[in-house]
Amino acid sequence: MIISQLSIAPVGEGVSLSKYIKEVVRILNKSGIKFKTNPMSTIIETKDLISLFNIVENLNEELFKLGIRRVITDLKIDFRMDKNATMETKLKSIN
Amino acid sequence: MIISQLSIAPVGEGVSLSKYIKEVVRILNKSGIKFKTNPMSTIIETKDLISLFNIVENLNEELFKLGIRRVITDLKIDFRMDKNATMETKLKSIN
Amino acid sequence: MIISQLSIAPVGEGVSLSKYIKEVVRILNKSGIKFKTNPMSTIIETKDLISLFNIVENLNEELFKLGIRRVITDLKIDFRMDKNATMETKLKSIN
Amino acid sequence: MIISQLSIAPVGEGVSLSKYIKEVVRILNKSGIKFKTNPMSTIIETKDLISLFNIVENLNEELFKLGIRRVITDLKIDFRMDKNATMETKLKSIN
Repeated sequence: MIISQLSIAPVGEGVSLSKYIKEVVRILNKSGIKFKTNPMSTIIETKDLISLFNIVENLNEELFKLGIRRVITDLKIDFRMDKNATMETKLKSIN
Repeated sequence: MIISQLSIAPVGEGVSLSKYIKEVVRILNKSGIKFKTNPMSTIIETKDLISLFNIVENLNEELFKLGIRRVITDLKIDFRMDKNATMETKLKSIN
Repeated sequence: MIISQLSIAPVGEGVSLSKYIKEVVRILNKSGIKFKTNPMSTIIETKDLISLFNIVENLNEELFKLGIRRVITDLKIDFRMDKNATMETKLKSIN
Repeated sequence: MIISQLSIAPVGEGVSLSKYIKEVVRILNKSGIKFKTNPMSTIIETKDLISLFNIVENLNEELFKLGIRRVITDLKIDFRMDKNATMETKLKSIN
């Protein structure tokens, strides 16, 4: 599995972004993808890069539909071939 | 409070980094700082930037003491003056 | 245009990564995409998200073909609808 | 030397951030620090972590003085002990 860290934020829509992050969470929930939100980003687990990129593209599109004119996406992808890491095994390995 | 997202990783020490992340978690625990580890990074809450930077400097130093020759630190800082956000209030606002 | 910042690095392949970054630059050159490398990352300009994601996927695949077992990709995407920014206009606007 | 990648951006101050990035560049120029701006971030070279953190703290303070209420700082630090890399040697090694 591929573990990624995603934050996606509108620019120029006021100081509070929670309204937009709620929308992101709503779309992620509907997508059926495995994810977990923390105070700074969302951790996502996908079987391949295409599933991940489809989600990121969909999130950008949906934010623009809300009238947002600029979106910054911050994405960090941990892709490993040596073992089948999941969000749970990765967190367990350090505790 | 300042909410930050930190990942700190040695370069050139093998494919598995969990040994070093465990050391990072051990140092954070000893420091008394408020933090929460997820599969991709550690969320840290500090009262000011100096407390945060002291921790990051200390973590770099301790990793070099282990014989590591190169360390990449990835840090994202959310500093807001308009309200006193904590890790809990920030996460609650989007759920 | 979409302006992105990309860094892609193998994990566990020694302290020096320049051999792999050279390979990344070679692939980017061959792709015909518009990019510029700096000491920490590569700035990429694409007309849409799909062109960008195709490149990132291709780079991951090529690195795995070299025998690398783990790849960390760090990607920041600036997607704006309000004007047609390029790498040049964006840099000019701050100088 | 320590090579870092910094982006610092106000939240909630409109779609265009160039006014604030200009202010960041003005402060960096006055500081005497070695840096180079690209379309997505600023590459900084410092002799130690303290010099870097002083700059980041100063930039946050100056942005808040302008009336900004929330600042997001994105910082990636490449700290290596095995050789004395500079912005120039690092870029030369991949070309």
